[in-house]
Amino acid sequence: MSLFLDVVSVDAAVETVRRITPAAGCEDVPLESALHRVLAKDVCADIDVPGFDRSTVDGYAVAAADTIGASEAIPAMLQFLGRVSMGSTDPGSISPGSCRYVPTGGALPAGADAVVMIENAEQIGDDLLVHRPVAPGENVIRRGEDFGAGKVVLERGRVLTPREIGVAAAVGADRVSVVMVPRIGIISTGNEVVPILERPAPGQVRDVNSYLAGAFVTERGCRPVYFGIVRDDRAALMRAVASALERCDAVLISGGSSKDERDNTAAVVAELGEVLVHGIALAPGKPTIIGTARKKPVIGLPGHPASTFVVLVAIVDHLIAAMSQTTVTRRTLRARLTQNIPSTRGREDYIRVSLEDGRATPIFGKSGLLNTLVQSDGLVRIPASIEGLEVGEEVEVILW
Amino acid sequence: MSLFLDVVSVDAAVETVRRITPAAGCEDVPLESALHRVLAKDVCADIDVPGFDRSTVDGYAVAAADTIGASEAIPAMLQFLGRVSMGSTDPGSISPGSCRYVPTGGALPAGADAVVMIENAEQIGDDLLVHRPVAPGENVIRRGEDFGAGKVVLERGRVLTPREIGVAAAVGADRVSVVMVPRIGIISTGNEVVPILERPAPGQVRDVNSYLAGAFVTERGCRPVYFGIVRDDRAALMRAVASALERCDAVLISGGSSKDERDNTAAVVAELGEVLVHGIALAPGKPTIIGTARKKPVIGLPGHPASTFVVLVAIVDHLIAAMSQTTVTRRTLRARLTQNIPSTRGREDYIRVSLEDGRATPIFGKSGLLNTLVQSDGLVRIPASIEGLEVGEEVEVILW
Repeated sequence: MSLFLDVVSVDAAVETVRRITPAAGCEDVPLESALHRVLAKDVCADIDVPGFDRSTVDGYAVAAADTIGASEAIPAMLQFLGRVSMGSTDPGSISPGSCRYVPTGGALPAGADAVVMIENAEQIGDDLLVHRPVAPGENVIRRGEDFGAGKVVLERGRVLTPREIGVAAAVGADRVSVVMVPRIGIISTGNEVVPILERPAPGQVRDVNSYLAGAFVTERGCRPVYFGIVRDDRAALMRAVASALERCDAVLISGGSSKDERDNTAAVVAELGEVLVHGIALAPGKPTIIGTARKKPVIGLPGHPASTFVVLVAIVDHLIAAMSQTTVTRRTLRARLTQNIPSTRGREDYIRVSLEDGRATPIFGKSGLLNTLVQSDGLVRIPASIEGLEVGEEVEVILW
Repeated sequence: MSLFLDVVSVDAAVETVRRITPAAGCEDVPLESALHRVLAKDVCADIDVPGFDRSTVDGYAVAAADTIGASEAIPAMLQFLGRVSMGSTDPGSISPGSCRYVPTGGALPAGADAVVMIENAEQIGDDLLVHRPVAPGENVIRRGEDFGAGKVVLERGRVLTPREIGVAAAVGADRVSVVMVPRIGIISTGNEVVPILERPAPGQVRDVNSYLAGAFVTERGCRPVYFGIVRDDRAALMRAVASALERCDAVLISGGSSKDERDNTAAVVAELGEVLVHGIALAPGKPTIIGTARKKPVIGLPGHPASTFVVLVAIVDHLIAAMSQTTVTRRTLRARLTQNIPSTRGREDYIRVSLEDGRATPIFGKSGLLNTLVQSDGLVRIPASIEGLEVGEEVEVILW
């Protein structure tokens, strides 16, 4: 193995990450606990939804043919047979020339194929005057029109938002099979790093990256497992990584902004497994390490939090997606640049931008500044193949 | 009180909801558990971040003035005094004409004001040849440049995403004051509604709305409390609402697609408090009830899940925002319509659309169809003041 591999493209790095990341297992969970989980198996309709022809209005269930030509001047006259009550499992029936009242959501009686809205009819004793014709199917949702029994209503790989949860409820999926929550080990390294409760002395910095990476993976449905701060000591780092590999599905080692630390991380990964990428054509985020050990992915993140965040977005997002066998979906927005952005060909640049009224203003501040993360609205990716972007150009902004 | 108030505009309904919704209290939580919570108090920097002048590269800390005019041909020559190690709390000092090696992230020695990148210098024994001049501050983040001690770094009302969590960690906020999680009571009504585990008989439907509303409020940081399915019985509904008011900060009563149920809900709210809105100029979602009881908001949602979802987005979102004293922020995207959308003046229409390549295609299916929720990408809002939108018009799509 070599510690000094060539810098690879972002695409190649992503491809490597996807290749070495095993799919997570799956588990059944109650539907009410399944929000934002990824479906591991298709959800199918167990029954027709709705299970009966259903009125979408308050009105009178009729045979549409009985209303042909009905008008205010010459209404159709039908015999009123009574009301269908909500939840009644027998809506009765009608014969030609008759009708029944049916509330919104109620079942049509046998023989009816349309509903006349109450405002288009007048009930006088046992007679109903219909002032407007209805077409067959009007104001009705047919049995199985929403979902047919046996059909797939939600495909595996889909993230369960409230709308999917509602659909699953409609087809009786009180438990769903979802991708297991990946456990992501998080290790901070560096002699300069102190716990956030401590007041750092000159030369020391707080452990921002554990919190940043932990929150990032949590937001994407993973469980972070924190292994604390490890000093620049190869044996100590080895123990921490080995322990993380034992307990987790993937390991993120943050830190290594100094060359000594970078070497430490790469050496430890090499000893436990294999370093596959050591440097990505990505700015900020170049000193990223991708390796594999005990058949699990290990990622070495840069030390500066703002660079770390770009690597989380550009690389780690794909690792998490690979675990649930999905692809990364990003919220994006098109905007016009208010300034030129220079870039180096052969390197993918991620520039923080703030957005206002469809215009994107690059925030050029030093990449080590955390305040650029909270003052920006997203990232503009400049592909490696071009030399920069010009003012007025329309760009795609990856929203935070 | 009147059960038959006039239909009000969406804006008036939202204003009413905000007026009757009390702000939630606040609580301190550990930073690692604060993801997606709303800040209740500003977070200030306890120290300068960084706490010292910090190098952004691997290189040599120098007095910039010593490098004026340096070039490949005529390098500046400096005396090498040694290395600053990472995490050392005393980076030493340099005097004019000398330098120290400093790794990325390391502290500048006293007397240095810039860093020469290693690739622009050559070390020969105790001498350093500098091949390029540096300006004061070059490759350095100054003490306090990211955040100054005492300054507000995160304002109250801000939602804590991973980036805010990272910033809070940098300023030592190991606990943060956040808005308490509102408890939202959820009641389903209707004789036709059965638990999702049951196989509905003809005329019956599963309780989709409890799951839909529960997941919706959970996604927005609230805790749903489920009070089950109540039949169309005024006394039973009264008991359920009273119990929900006791245990929760707000109550959602879903169901009431038939007139009997609508009357029941309004009557119960009136008896326990006051009905303020009974009908909103909103489609779908017209039969919405807004009331207040025991100084808590009570919302009556329509029975059809697809209509319910529009009311959750158009109205309940604002209720939740009011509790955390924030405003609703929506993910939106501009797109061009592929078809005309007719609309009625005086009513706010929410039309589901699917998106592709910047074009929005309306999904006109009956509003009671659940499949339109999972087949669409968002909603187009047609203001009450206009009569529809034309093909080719640019519209704002509220993304799900």
